[in-house]
Amino acid sequence: MVSERLSKQLAFIVEIDKLKQILRQSVVTGSVRNENDAEHSWHLAVMAILLSEYASTKEIDILRVVKMVLIHDLVEIDAGDTFCYDAKGYEDKAQREQKAADRLFNLLPSDQASEIMELWREFEDLTTPEARFAACLDRIQPLLLNYHTNGHTWKKPGVTSQMVYQRNAVVEENAPELYDYVKEIIESSINKGYLQR
Amino acid sequence: MVSERLSKQLAFIVEIDKLKQILRQSVVTGSVRNENDAEHSWHLAVMAILLSEYASTKEIDILRVVKMVLIHDLVEIDAGDTFCYDAKGYEDKAQREQKAADRLFNLLPSDQASEIMELWREFEDLTTPEARFAACLDRIQPLLLNYHTNGHTWKKPGVTSQMVYQRNAVVEENAPELYDYVKEIIESSINKGYLQR
Repeated sequence: MVSERLSKQLAFIVEIDKLKQILRQSVVTGSVRNENDAEHSWHLAVMAILLSEYASTKEIDILRVVKMVLIHDLVEIDAGDTFCYDAKGYEDKAQREQKAADRLFNLLPSDQASEIMELWREFEDLTTPEARFAACLDRIQPLLLNYHTNGHTWKKPGVTSQMVYQRNAVVEENAPELYDYVKEIIESSINKGYLQR
Repeated sequence: MVSERLSKQLAFIVEIDKLKQILRQSVVTGSVRNENDAEHSWHLAVMAILLSEYASTKEIDILRVVKMVLIHDLVEIDAGDTFCYDAKGYEDKAQREQKAADRLFNLLPSDQASEIMELWREFEDLTTPEARFAACLDRIQPLLLNYHTNGHTWKKPGVTSQMVYQRNAVVEENAPELYDYVKEIIESSINKGYLQR
């Protein structure tokens, strides 16, 4: 017989399979299909491992960054993906996501529920160098996808380079070398017509 | 100007976006679409974090397990997914995958290329407790998906419970409590008609 603890862990692991069905605004390179949250989270985790040397805080805890990016979008299983340039969607985002976190994370044994809840709040509130570096990755990954799909998401009505710069402001302070790259991509995208000045 | 080192890292990060298009045999729960390697790798990484207490070797290096499962399928970008019950496909699998590893990992700066190559070989050769625990997760995750999709992959011609038991043998020694669960699932699947005895 499987223990109650393991049953809870497995139920959570099956439940979060749903993250694979939550679609983002970005499209996957070389395709016309939208990226989903599970793929996005995988991509961020690999980036965390390869790019940690660029975090402005040295001696960053990479495992903590990886954990954070792996779980940061789980709440969207219930709350859905909110487009980062959708001001209206942002109005009740925090409330919807907290409700989702309460339901989902509490499927786990209480010690792990607390750990994941804490990691998620840390990511949302940017309270540590790890959370701020995770946020940098979460900004740069869609930038990469947009640049390599002719500015797919940036062509939506109302998106301007000013908004993309603002969205990436966290990178400037927390990973300055990566921010040099962000600037290059934004300027190149304006020149190529992928993004409105 | 972005450094040569960062350019290489970013080129690799864009290249591995292709993992999202490599389809596996399993289908995602609640859908009829095949899972892809990126989603699968994400799922394993979350499992590594939540289930490490069940590894028979205590004091396992979780970050190492997570890194391994995040990169373990990258070679399939070139070599394709080989169905685990396809004896013919397995004949030249090692050769195809080594060639893929040489091309892909060497897009990275040499220190990181070596690190990823070593992690991948460790995973393939099961030379450490971390690699063996990663292999356990790589067996259990499709088992979970199959069980929750009425035995989808197990209904392919020629698949029997004996083959599934053999595939999961690594779990018995390296995560015995998880193996109790594996046995429950296999027996229940036979009873439900998801899997041939």
